Amino acid sequence: MHYPEPISKLMESYMKLPGIGEKTAARLAFYTVNMNEDDVTGFARSLISVKRDLHYCSICGNMTEQDPCEICQDKSRDQSLILVVEHPKDVISMEKMQEFKGLYHVLHGVLSPIEGTGPEDINIPDLIKRLQNEEVKEVIIATNATAEGEATAMYLSRLIKPSGIKVTRLAHGLSVGSDIEYADEVTLLKAVEGRRDM
Amino acid sequence: MHYPEPISKLMESYMKLPGIGEKTAARLAFYTVNMNEDDVTGFARSLISVKRDLHYCSICGNMTEQDPCEICQDKSRDQSLILVVEHPKDVISMEKMQEFKGLYHVLHGVLSPIEGTGPEDINIPDLIKRLQNEEVKEVIIATNATAEGEATAMYLSRLIKPSGIKVTRLAHGLSVGSDIEYADEVTLLKAVEGRRDM
Repeated sequence: MHYPEPISKLMESYMKLPGIGEKTAARLAFYTVNMNEDDVTGFARSLISVKRDLHYCSICGNMTEQDPCEICQDKSRDQSLILVVEHPKDVISMEKMQEFKGLYHVLHGVLSPIEGTGPEDINIPDLIKRLQNEEVKEVIIATNATAEGEATAMYLSRLIKPSGIKVTRLAHGLSVGSDIEYADEVTLLKAVEGRRDM
Repeated sequence: MHYPEPISKLMESYMKLPGIGEKTAARLAFYTVNMNEDDVTGFARSLISVKRDLHYCSICGNMTEQDPCEICQDKSRDQSLILVVEHPKDVISMEKMQEFKGLYHVLHGVLSPIEGTGPEDINIPDLIKRLQNEEVKEVIIATNATAEGEATAMYLSRLIKPSGIKVTRLAHGLSVGSDIEYADEVTLLKAVEGRRDM
């Protein structure tokens, strides 16, 4: 005997999510059966909505319900500053900080020769167009501190600098609250290289 | 700025699942946005189906699409043997073993004086009715090896034995493949108590 079909179908769906294997999927599926009917219906509705109601902003590539997105429409933000990130969720992390008042540009990926991802495959051409048309003075590159993220930052820097726009990169160093003892060597090296007067 | 509404709604839904906090919910929600449309629609459909198409068998309390369930309808199974479990998923674990050919009875819980769960609150009255009407010779109690599971087993044993039906309990002892070194004392004690001739 196998699982009843509705259960096994739901398990298959749960297993398509990252980090969820068969055992967890079974646990979640059985849990779902005992959930409140409204919660399950709401769950189903929010799944549909996330595919139907979310789009990418035609200017910055961020995830949004309206186009252009709230941030691109907000004229009170500093139009001369663009922060470049890999993914829409990075925009949310930045916004949580409540300090950055410029605009964003979401690449939706990084350059990766191994996976065959070139500049045309991510949202770079749109960034270049923005830089030609808008009055941008500085581009802050906030790709992740991975090999691909660094390579993408380097590529963008070389591409943008000749146009006279200032290009900066987020600082790398020790996390606030972290112990030197537990920092990896590369982070330590970056922290030393990036040392500041005090 | 917060998450776009469709994302935050989906996160709320994910967070209703056990073991999923805000960070995981965010990760899953963003992942969902990039999932194949058909997969997401299928996911939503299987959520609805699990609430709509699954019922409890009116005889044994197992989860089923038809009533009575496949197992209760299967006349080739040993009608004189009933294995009592706490939850529908325990039936699936037992069936995976492919050795047990009797019937089941699902309690949907255990006795718990602390939580105020008495015999009438779980599927015990129906079990007693079955024992009166069907030609049952043995009841195997397979509640979990927890305090409540043991208490429920004890209660059922005292309730059923006077009617002359044999009542047995699953053996407790060392897991197959496990080291004595890592076994807890209670398990070891049970293993010693339950030792068998060889």
